[in-house]
Formats: sequence, C-alpha cells, structure tokens
Amino acid sequence: MNNKVAVYRKEHFNAAHRLHNSMWDASTNTSVFGKCNNANYHGHNYELIVKVVGEPDPETGFVIDLKLLSEVIEESILNRFDHKNLNLDLEEFTKVNPTAENIAIVIYRMLREKLNPALELQVRLYETERNFVEYPA
Amino acid sequence: MNNKVAVYRKEHFNAAHRLHNSMWDASTNTSVFGKCNNANYHGHNYELIVKVVGEPDPETGFVIDLKLLSEVIEESILNRFDHKNLNLDLEEFTKVNPTAENIAIVIYRMLREKLNPALELQVRLYETERNFVEYPA
Amino acid sequence: MNNKVAVYRKEHFNAAHRLHNSMWDASTNTSVFGKCNNANYHGHNYELIVKVVGEPDPETGFVIDLKLLSEVIEESILNRFDHKNLNLDLEEFTKVNPTAENIAIVIYRMLREKLNPALELQVRLYETERNFVEYPA
Amino acid sequence: MNNKVAVYRKEHFNAAHRLHNSMWDASTNTSVFGKCNNANYHGHNYELIVKVVGEPDPETGFVIDLKLLSEVIEESILNRFDHKNLNLDLEEFTKVNPTAENIAIVIYRMLREKLNPALELQVRLYETERNFVEYPA
Amino acid sequence: MNNKVAVYRKEHFNAAHRLHNSMWDASTNTSVFGKCNNANYHGHNYELIVKVVGEPDPETGFVIDLKLLSEVIEESILNRFDHKNLNLDLEEFTKVNPTAENIAIVIYRMLREKLNPALELQVRLYETERNFVEYPA
Amino acid sequence: MNNKVAVYRKEHFNAAHRLHNSMWDASTNTSVFGKCNNANYHGHNYELIVKVVGEPDPETGFVIDLKLLSEVIEESILNRFDHKNLNLDLEEFTKVNPTAENIAIVIYRMLREKLNPALELQVRLYETERNFVEYPA
Repeated sequence: MNNKVAVYRKEHFNAAHRLHNSMWDASTNTSVFGKCNNANYHGHNYELIVKVVGEPDPETGFVIDLKLLSEVIEESILNRFDHKNLNLDLEEFTKVNPTAENIAIVIYRMLREKLNPALELQVRLYETERNFVEYPA
Repeated sequence: MNNKVAVYRKEHFNAAHRLHNSMWDASTNTSVFGKCNNANYHGHNYELIVKVVGEPDPETGFVIDLKLLSEVIEESILNRFDHKNLNLDLEEFTKVNPTAENIAIVIYRMLREKLNPALELQVRLYETERNFVEYPA
Repeated sequence: MNNKVAVYRKEHFNAAHRLHNSMWDASTNTSVFGKCNNANYHGHNYELIVKVVGEPDPETGFVIDLKLLSEVIEESILNRFDHKNLNLDLEEFTKVNPTAENIAIVIYRMLREKLNPALELQVRLYETERNFVEYPA
Repeated sequence: MNNKVAVYRKEHFNAAHRLHNSMWDASTNTSVFGKCNNANYHGHNYELIVKVVGEPDPETGFVIDLKLLSEVIEESILNRFDHKNLNLDLEEFTKVNPTAENIAIVIYRMLREKLNPALELQVRLYETERNFVEYPA
Repeated sequence: MNNKVAVYRKEHFNAAHRLHNSMWDASTNTSVFGKCNNANYHGHNYELIVKVVGEPDPETGFVIDLKLLSEVIEESILNRFDHKNLNLDLEEFTKVNPTAENIAIVIYRMLREKLNPALELQVRLYETERNFVEYPA
Repeated sequence: MNNKVAVYRKEHFNAAHRLHNSMWDASTNTSVFGKCNNANYHGHNYELIVKVVGEPDPETGFVIDLKLLSEVIEESILNRFDHKNLNLDLEEFTKVNPTAENIAIVIYRMLREKLNPALELQVRLYETERNFVEYPA
C-alpha cells in the first residue's frame, strides 16, 4: 500500500441527445435504440463524477485542489456540453453515437490532456439515477 | 381536522426542450433565456411527484391504489412526454413555452381529467435537483 | 403571518407487512392487493418524517429540541415498529390493513398523545422512495 | 384555485456554529444544548431551499427567473454565510442563538427585502439530512 | 489501459427476511442477530446495482443494452425476490442465512449464468442506505 | 476470484475546521485555501463510509457484524470527531492540515488498529455531496 488518495468532484450538465447509427436504416435504428432513437431528441441531467488519484502534497494536504479541478471540468467539459445537443453541437459525436459509454470516453480524453500525467483519472457518468457508466473500468 | 391523507407517487421522464418566445427577436430570447434558448435544444431528467388527497377507503386502506395512479400517470403523461422533444413533439407547447411552470400546469390539467373529482390533486416537477415547481401552489 | 416555524425530524424503521382484508376471499385479496398480498409477507425500509409547528422559545431558539423529539419517536414508534411484522407484532393492525395511509394515521395518534397540544403535528411516511403519504393532509 | 405556481431553488453553504445562551451558566448550556454547545464550534453543510409563489408571466412562463433568484440568494445569503462562523462572523447572531429555526428566520427576512412584495416567500433549511426547518410554517 | 467501460443498472425489490441459524438455540440466535432474529420477520427495500464490464460495441456504442440488462435482472431476480419472504419463499435460503452478503452472492450466481462470459460482473446490494455489500470484492 | 465480499457502513459527523498552513504567511494561506482559510472556521456534515473486505463466516453469513462495525466507528471516530473543531479539539490536526484527504488517512489509521488484520479496510469521506475522497486509493 502506498499513500495514494482518490479525490472526487461531482459536476452536472443538461443536454439533449439521440441514439442513432447513420449506417443503419430506420427500422434497425428503432429496433435497437427504441425510444432513445426519437428523431427530435430527448435529454438528460447528466451527473459527472471525476476521480483523480495521487499522493497528497505535504504542504497543502491536497491531491489536487478541488476548486481547480472544478474549474478544469467547467472549462473543458461543462462549457462545451451544458445546455447543448450532443449530436448537433459537438463534433465529437458526429460519427460516434452519444451513448453514456462514448460520452464518458470523450470526457475522459478531454480531461486527460489537461491534468498532470502523474495523476490517475477515472470518469463516472450518470445518464439517469439508474443508468450509469465508468471509464476506464 | 378531517381524516384526509395525502398520497404521493414519484415518476420520471427524460425529455428535450428549449425556452423560446417566438414573438421576440433572437437577441431578446438570448438575453432572457440564456443558454436555455440554445437552438438545438437541451434536456432533462424530469422527476414528477403527483399528490392526491382524500379519505382512505375503509375496506382497502387506500386513498387511491398507487399502482393504479402509476398506470394513469404512465398512460396520460409518460407515454406522451418520455423521450420526447417537448417543443416539437407535444402540441401543448407549440404556443406555450415549456418552462417547468408551464409543464406542471399542463400535466396537472391532463391528470385532473382522469381522476375522481372528489380527490384533490397537486403536481410537483423537478427540472433539476435544484430547480423545481409545484402547481397549484 | 405569525412567528411559527416548522421543524422536521427524519427517522426510519424496517418492517415486514402484507396487505390483506380478512373479510374478503383469497381471489379478491389477490385481485386488489396483487403481490402486496403475498402470504409470507414482504417488507420495507420505512422513512418517517415528523413535522412539529410552533413558535421558537426565545431562550433556546428551539420550537422543540430535536434530540427530545427524536427520543419521543424512538420510544413511542421505533421501539414498537422497527424490525417487526406489522400484521403479527402490532395489535393496531390486527383489524386495520397496514397500508402506508393507515400506518401514518396510527403513528400520528401515538405521537399526538406525547406532544404538547400547543404544537401542531404532521407525519410523512415513505414506504418506498416512490410511494409516500402524509397525515393529516 | 388561482393560477399560482410555486417555484423552488436549492442552494447550500457550509458554516460553523455553536448553540449557546450567554445569559446562562456553563452547566445550563451544556445541559440544554449538549454537544452542540462545544466551545470550539462544530459545523454543517446547510442546504437552503427558497420557495417563491406567484403567477407565471405569460411572456416568459416564469414566476421568477430561477437564475435571478439564485443570484439574489448568492448575493444576500451565500456571500455572507458560506464558509463563515455564524456566531462570530455574522452580527445577526451576536444576540440570537443560531439554531436552524433562527437562521431560517434571518434568511427569510434578508430575502423578503429583495423580492417583489407580490411574491410569497418561504424558506426551508436543512441543518442535516435528518434535522430541518421551514419558515414561515 | 484497455478500452473497457463499466456500465451499471440500478433496480430494487422489497422483501421480508430474518437472520437465523437453525443449528443454534434461541438464545444464541438472539445474542448474535439481535432484533434481526425477530421470529415474525422484518423487511427492507433492497437496492440492487449490477455492474457489467466490457468493451463497447462499435456499432451501438453499448457494452450491453441497459434495457436488456434490466430485463434479465427483472426475469432472473426481481420476479423471484420482489414482495417475497426470502426465508420462506426462496429455496436458496432454506439452508443459507439471508444476510446481505449471502443475498449478493446468490444474485451474482443467478446473473452470471445469464450473461455473456466475456463480460465481467459485480453486484452491489443496499439493505439500507447505511448498510450495503458488494460481490465479488 | 475468491469468495470475498465487501461490506460497507455509512456514518456521519458534524465538525468545524479551517485549512491553514502555519508555515505560510496570511496572504499565501488566503491565496491557496481561499474561503476555506476563514480564521473563525466553517464546518461540514461529513459522511463517512467504511468498507471492510473478507470472506463471510459460514455460521453467521457475516463478513463482520455491521452493528459491531458501527460501534467501533462510534467509539473510535464519532466520539472524537462529532461536534468538534478538528483544528482545535483533535491533536492529530495540530500539525496536519484537516483536508478531506488527511482526515480520511487519520480515520483509516484509527480504524486499522481496531479491526482484525485479516480484513481489508478502505475509508470514503464526503466533505460535501460534491467533494469526497477515498483512502487507500
């Protein structure tokens, strides 16, 4: 056992999306994605929990200042995702279906670039209270 | 004090919407509704709590069977609102802005028609955990 | 407007129960109460919220000391309801069906006797997160 | 029934406090307030829910813009209460015991001055998940 | 790091149970299990969170369709556990004490048979909000 | 895969604290810790989740009796932390800044001494609903 501590910051954003595979015809899309394929979109209050793992700095007692982590999440993620249509407003989902799995992977990659490589990172995303995902597993 | 009991049933639906007044120009809409005016919509996990007040039936001990109330809500509300775009898919919001206030009033009216007039009705709607409304007040 | 403040204390108990009307035959019971009629009982984590309304005492700033209210609830309610079978272990439900409505009325009456009559009382009982009741309405 | 809708905004602040009546001796304070009387203070994550009641504006569909309500709460309340010691940092509690009841009354009065008198106002304050108050009752 | 994502689905069921070791006498059972040994049973709202880990399908973006996972849980678990007495109605607990630990192990084994062996599985079970377990650890 | 099960117990305590490094001057403390450096302290409702991992005892079905675990937490942690000022009332934080990270490490060490070494231990501490930590990571 080392002295690593995990710190978590919870944020949220509200977005519209629709599940759709443009390589498939309409009936396949309906069959696979059901009401999530609704042409006019639907939406969610996404809850995002970002986990960062490292050793606390002896002078501050912080693994990372959660105010700073919150600002990084706001700038990198919330400003781009909040009150947006994921399919129409974000280029990341023009070819990738905005399932919770894929949104979590995209968010992970965006945050990974902004954080000190010495810190481990994991992202949990709640699409609803009952459906949520985590990346990397 | 009479013998009335309030019973509550919580349901939820996921929908896209946008706040917009078509009588106003774009800059007024942006100024008033901010990011909620995003042209491509955003969305929410709406939590709906329906309150029904009456005297318990002496034979069952129920004010109203909550399974039946749940079915009424599903048929009247969820089947029409869940995984929909409130602005585009529901005629009730073609001329009425789908604010939480107006959605609650629309839901109240739909449920009022389906329930025994002897029962009092109130609707609470959570747009997010931090923003919610109740009708009638 | 007077100076009354409402204070709330949340407690919980775990109990088994079954819904059943002994005046009815088995098929009527099944038809009305469904799986809640299961002969071997089922159970719930009941969440109980007790609301007391009055004017704060100028010396303490308390409407009622919530530690004392908690002790009254523990003695009067939790010691009798927690980890019990409501149908078999509580005489109050030998002739009264332990629906959430009736449990709330029974709890209200038990607490009403223990509290200063100058204080208003209301009981909210969650049978599940999605089904709850309030008495008096 | 009129057309009034209640809208709610949830905010939070973290503060230290201690319950103490300076007119009493130490043993009376300990006897009445128990561990809440600890000389070095303790603290809470206070959850504040502000309820505003009125008729929705026909042009916006808002009773009050919840962004504006949130800003009023931030300016009037959070900037003064958040990360503070209620007994030492707020003059309102130099002579008034900072019980949840009294904090709610103080917050109500501060917000009442800032809001349109045509709107009804009620404040709910959670000191913990299990102890909370509402003013006016 | 691979591309595995964890997906989670939350379900619930309400059941009665009692903790009891039939090899022991009554006083040992009371001494060890306390009020959980009540002869007439008590009950809980069990919250069940099923975690499945795998790589997202490139065509759907799903590790597993959570609608399908929800149906598997309903058929395999909820239809057998919900509104039941675990000691009396489920043969799995005739010789095994229905502690949260053992219920989680039983649920894990039932689900393991139904899911693609390439997918990793973990079960979390909340007996109450404050007592919960996870298997495998 | 072995037969280990993780069991969790959630407790809470309310405490005051302030973030401060006595080796730094005032402006550095303000710059790094912001409003968390307030000289008169602020406070939190800390939620503590203790995770213990082991194999269930075949006779009881328990990894550890959660009533006993709860008592250990109460004696070792809550009696020392609840309704206290972490900086002034606990010697552990005279030289260590009471960040969530450091509080979790201190709690882990206190509990580690009290539990069977064969059982694995992990501590999660919520400072607020949105800021929390876990040790060991």
